[in-house]
Amino acid sequence: MAHETTVRFGILGCAHISIKLCKAISKAPNATLQAIGSRSLEKATAFAAEHTLPAAVRVYGSYEAVLEDDEVDAVYIPLPTGLHVTWAVRAAARRKHVLLEKPVAMSVAELDRILEACEANGVQFMDGTMWVHHPRTAKMKEALSDDQRFGQLKWIHSCLTYNPGPEFLKNSIRMKADLDGLGALGDTGWYCIRAILWAMDYELPKSVVAFPGAILNEEGVIISCASSMHWEDGKSASFHCSFLTYITFDVTFLGTKGCLRLHDFTLPFEESFGYATFCEASELDFGKIEEGRWCPKPNEHVVETEFTQDVWMVKEFADLVLKVKSCEIKPQKAWPLLSRKTQLVLDAVKESIERGYQPVEIVS
Amino acid sequence: MAHETTVRFGILGCAHISIKLCKAISKAPNATLQAIGSRSLEKATAFAAEHTLPAAVRVYGSYEAVLEDDEVDAVYIPLPTGLHVTWAVRAAARRKHVLLEKPVAMSVAELDRILEACEANGVQFMDGTMWVHHPRTAKMKEALSDDQRFGQLKWIHSCLTYNPGPEFLKNSIRMKADLDGLGALGDTGWYCIRAILWAMDYELPKSVVAFPGAILNEEGVIISCASSMHWEDGKSASFHCSFLTYITFDVTFLGTKGCLRLHDFTLPFEESFGYATFCEASELDFGKIEEGRWCPKPNEHVVETEFTQDVWMVKEFADLVLKVKSCEIKPQKAWPLLSRKTQLVLDAVKESIERGYQPVEIVS
Repeated sequence: MAHETTVRFGILGCAHISIKLCKAISKAPNATLQAIGSRSLEKATAFAAEHTLPAAVRVYGSYEAVLEDDEVDAVYIPLPTGLHVTWAVRAAARRKHVLLEKPVAMSVAELDRILEACEANGVQFMDGTMWVHHPRTAKMKEALSDDQRFGQLKWIHSCLTYNPGPEFLKNSIRMKADLDGLGALGDTGWYCIRAILWAMDYELPKSVVAFPGAILNEEGVIISCASSMHWEDGKSASFHCSFLTYITFDVTFLGTKGCLRLHDFTLPFEESFGYATFCEASELDFGKIEEGRWCPKPNEHVVETEFTQDVWMVKEFADLVLKVKSCEIKPQKAWPLLSRKTQLVLDAVKESIERGYQPVEIVS
Repeated sequence: MAHETTVRFGILGCAHISIKLCKAISKAPNATLQAIGSRSLEKATAFAAEHTLPAAVRVYGSYEAVLEDDEVDAVYIPLPTGLHVTWAVRAAARRKHVLLEKPVAMSVAELDRILEACEANGVQFMDGTMWVHHPRTAKMKEALSDDQRFGQLKWIHSCLTYNPGPEFLKNSIRMKADLDGLGALGDTGWYCIRAILWAMDYELPKSVVAFPGAILNEEGVIISCASSMHWEDGKSASFHCSFLTYITFDVTFLGTKGCLRLHDFTLPFEESFGYATFCEASELDFGKIEEGRWCPKPNEHVVETEFTQDVWMVKEFADLVLKVKSCEIKPQKAWPLLSRKTQLVLDAVKESIERGYQPVEIVS
């Protein structure tokens, strides 16, 4: 039976990122695109035509229609953040498994409503953070866990920025308080926080402190900000996210014996060519440095990948959904927990900005 | 006359870095090593023998003897920071031009005593920050000033760390409050602050805020810390310096249209092979990124160099000294001013740590 090996996806909204997900769903071996809905049938039909979706894909003139389709198992929700709680809760109530674009909610309180709805209805929840599903990420974790080469993790810095220009800053939904009210913090800061938590094995920091000088628009939406994060045992991290500068996807993990760096952590440079790289340095000869020679130079690790990371994400989510549908497992709580921890830190950074850059304790 | 084309250097102390400077002085076309002094004649003699200094180099059993040598024009002072004010002031009083290792002093107040002595005695002052003299640095400044490719500078992050191990942390002079009381902030943070100020065209930040969680030893010497820096017009920077992790010499300069990155800013990877590189990215095609292809990839700029940066520093300092000696110019105030600005920010970071991570305004 096709239903047992394939998850039938519905997509709520014809956002730009929906194009990527349509492709990813078509490429994932355990997923198929069943339906797409927009607020207008015209828009949904035009989207289907423009992106040559298969004729079998059902095109709806409302999000509700997608949720009412009994042959939709799971939904991908790329709607503006301010609409997440409404539509994710409705989707769960319709027993649709939920793949929710990041940032998952405007606050942890909203996310908790979503997670409660998912739990109550026995559906799997996962957020749309793609890079964690790339095989490179698992290889990086191996490198960070190598006590001989990397030692103990002490410091992380991440910088994720892009410059979408003045038109975006004026009119984009990511600049509207009621739609994507978290701005750059939600859009790119989310990835920084997630990378930091990922490396820290998802141990929450005890506190965060935003840097003075965050830039907000007149609606209070964050255009640019930075923050540090602090752990009980002395580990620290910092990150910078912004809509005002050239594109960066940087992260540096620094241990007592080694260092791991990426400039493309959220989207591998060479992904479409079937591989991804990261740079790891260790066991440096200090004497040679003083002679003006770095020895050894950092290693470039190359990780081959069968799929791009969006496909891996869909596949991993669909695997869980299939197991839940066949009653093999209950919905996994690990994924919602990672989303929740990320949102918890994000909320704390926002609070620190609102409180004049005071430290904010993290209470989970 | 040899005296008119060659500066005769004396070195105060047989520190490890004195080896590097002996070599640099011997390679610089306008410098010669005249004398080296240590607190004991045995130590100075052993140093001269071990590093096969020319027989003409005068070896003294005190620092004072170097200063009393009328054929010494300029001194390089690599003594522990706590001794700088005493010996730099004495050197200036003896009309020796002063090349002073960084951090230049324990505080701006001490530095001001040194600078006043230099000015009163008409001698040139320069600190020992080598990387600013490398031809790569001038090329980087060109790249940062390119409005078309780089745009306006918005954000800088620098990380400079190394892990000298437990023996160092226990016994090194860099861990003693009365010798190198600024610890990692003075040793590696100095470079971060300098790189940030250099990129900001030495415009001082209006404030700095150290991150919570700085690590100090029982004498109060900084082992690891981090700080952000803030400018009136919204530009920001942050840095991390530490004696607890693997070696990093990282800096990222982020502009509205481009990005410039180095992982070897204080000591170019390939310096001994006659060149240095830096990576610059601009004009990215966002559409291609979304397809999983970065286009164009960052450019690697290669800058050839006739000398290593230590030689460039000696040469640049000696050029000024020769011009001052021949009364062609007065001692240049630009170099002492850069040292002073760096020390001013360093002092503010230290004060922020001491005041429980409160913001500290910079008053020049």
